[in-house]
Amino acid sequence: MSEEFNADNLIVSWVKELSPYVPGEQPQSQGWVKLNTNENPYPASPNIAKVLQEQVEALRLYPEPTSLELRKAIAKQFDLSAEQVIIGNGSDNILDMITRSFVGLGQAGHTVPSYSLYPVVVAMSGGDLLNIPFEEAMELPVEAIAKTPASVFFLTNPNAPTGVCFSLESIEAVLKKIKGILVVDEAYIDFGGQSASALLQSHNNLIVVQTFSKSYSLAGLRVGYAMASSKIIQVLDSVRDAYNVDRLAQAIAQVALEDRAHFQANCEKIIQTRNQSQAYFQSLDWFTYPSSANFLFTQPKNAQGESGPEVAASLFEYLKSKKILVRYFGSHPLTCSFLRVSIGTDNQMKTFNEGIESWLKQEQQN
Amino acid sequence: MSEEFNADNLIVSWVKELSPYVPGEQPQSQGWVKLNTNENPYPASPNIAKVLQEQVEALRLYPEPTSLELRKAIAKQFDLSAEQVIIGNGSDNILDMITRSFVGLGQAGHTVPSYSLYPVVVAMSGGDLLNIPFEEAMELPVEAIAKTPASVFFLTNPNAPTGVCFSLESIEAVLKKIKGILVVDEAYIDFGGQSASALLQSHNNLIVVQTFSKSYSLAGLRVGYAMASSKIIQVLDSVRDAYNVDRLAQAIAQVALEDRAHFQANCEKIIQTRNQSQAYFQSLDWFTYPSSANFLFTQPKNAQGESGPEVAASLFEYLKSKKILVRYFGSHPLTCSFLRVSIGTDNQMKTFNEGIESWLKQEQQN
Repeated sequence: MSEEFNADNLIVSWVKELSPYVPGEQPQSQGWVKLNTNENPYPASPNIAKVLQEQVEALRLYPEPTSLELRKAIAKQFDLSAEQVIIGNGSDNILDMITRSFVGLGQAGHTVPSYSLYPVVVAMSGGDLLNIPFEEAMELPVEAIAKTPASVFFLTNPNAPTGVCFSLESIEAVLKKIKGILVVDEAYIDFGGQSASALLQSHNNLIVVQTFSKSYSLAGLRVGYAMASSKIIQVLDSVRDAYNVDRLAQAIAQVALEDRAHFQANCEKIIQTRNQSQAYFQSLDWFTYPSSANFLFTQPKNAQGESGPEVAASLFEYLKSKKILVRYFGSHPLTCSFLRVSIGTDNQMKTFNEGIESWLKQEQQN
Repeated sequence: MSEEFNADNLIVSWVKELSPYVPGEQPQSQGWVKLNTNENPYPASPNIAKVLQEQVEALRLYPEPTSLELRKAIAKQFDLSAEQVIIGNGSDNILDMITRSFVGLGQAGHTVPSYSLYPVVVAMSGGDLLNIPFEEAMELPVEAIAKTPASVFFLTNPNAPTGVCFSLESIEAVLKKIKGILVVDEAYIDFGGQSASALLQSHNNLIVVQTFSKSYSLAGLRVGYAMASSKIIQVLDSVRDAYNVDRLAQAIAQVALEDRAHFQANCEKIIQTRNQSQAYFQSLDWFTYPSSANFLFTQPKNAQGESGPEVAASLFEYLKSKKILVRYFGSHPLTCSFLRVSIGTDNQMKTFNEGIESWLKQEQQN
């Protein structure tokens, strides 16, 4: 053993300070009602099976490096050119490419609360992240965003974890005023929002990020994409790993994209179930943000009608003990008295509702 | 269109200077004899089919974030703990994690010529890359490597593009003297080399990188891994994208790893064909480095017995016109009069040999 060697002395300074992203729990055992990571409760397009055999036989060969066919299919969908599309190993890979290209040791910005990966990718590149706080009303703070000196500003729309959607008008207002690039992260856009992709023709300081993880039921496959000016895409491509998306992922994502009927029906079912759950929370008199996403952000009340961090944490733990997983973000004043509940099947939501009722009864007895 | 906005002004300085990695051609049309990117000519383990159905049905769910089961399987194979193994989206992803963790804006080193991705990942992180030249004999320049101030030194073993293998003794000599971390990139180790993984117990400044792309016939899947001290792995893990390896990739790689009989037979077939091709080049009196990889690096001679950059380039172009692809690295004096030929099936090598013979005849007529 080389006694003098200490890996600590070699770690890049900003990497030493990193707090890694903590993904929601992914229990590997069976029997969980999993409403914690915004996965789609319904399977992906059955057409996937058709391309599998062909691609599995070709696995010995490298994939097409630039995911060209998938880029063409996405471009067609959004009336863009393939040069305006880049594919990532999940949209997290896209967010990292954006940060490496345009932030580096500089400054990025985001609204708080939002997707907790932004601080991680920015810190991984050695950059600083500016926080623009939301008010409780969760309206887009256009002026505050426009004033930041950040070279890249991340905006999740619909927002996470609230589910609140911002209007295209307010996003365009930001685009007209901001000095840097606005990244609109639309992971949940297909559940009721209006995509900012409509603004790509008129604004060259916009990157729209979408993913196959949620509305296409492919979280396990890791395929995300960005749409922007061909100039911006070219820069992102220069920091893209040459073979970042595997053969199966390219082919499966394309098939899923092209099965519009399955996609549409899937999104509609989730919106319908979300509306039922929203009504259920309303019947309990729990404040819940209006959601355009595949989750709801609700403020639980206990049997005494009280809400707050202890109440939210208590329900979270109670549900977990019943093998019902939701997400609790305890560290921010705007989120700590809420729970984020992914929309499952109607059956899963029934089990979830029963969990709440049994928690309320138990609370009453205490 | 925001007239004043110019993305160029926002690009991180070192990203602006990047020369992206140029992968070998991946023709999408049919009918090529593809001996240019060191792919395995034989399919992966047939056992893959067994896990496919199960994983495809689960694609709506995120993968296990840390690839735990695959890490366990690799650890078992190499008599390590799972904490000493990290999985990447291809070993290129591993090389990038290493650079981000331990190089940053600092210095890395590599031998020249070797894998042309090292300059790209180092430049992408804003670092400098020191070049330690090989002599024509391609012996490991132990003293020169040991003297570099680099925090990370990349060594490809067997080397690319020559195929030459270095002894464990010479690698251990480097480990004892080097100040930083030695990365032994063993993409081709299973075709005849001795893995430095045997040195992990005694040296904590070593990272061994391997891949499923070559010997497991899974280039299309993008799975690579690093083995090192748990301390080093922990650092790499802090810059790993939380869901960097998809469900299908984790499961397929594990099945391929565990089918030892298929793996062994596959490697043996390639070694046998390589020996035949080596003998063929010898019969033509073409200098060819002794290879422990799934490719040969040979210096073609034309009908007049001349070698050199024009001769190599001429054969490369001639073969390409016959839909036979090999790799030509024209930019370095030690490589520009050579061609790198991946080992295909016996039939593919027969077609390749016929291509050479028809080129020689044509040369003679000119």
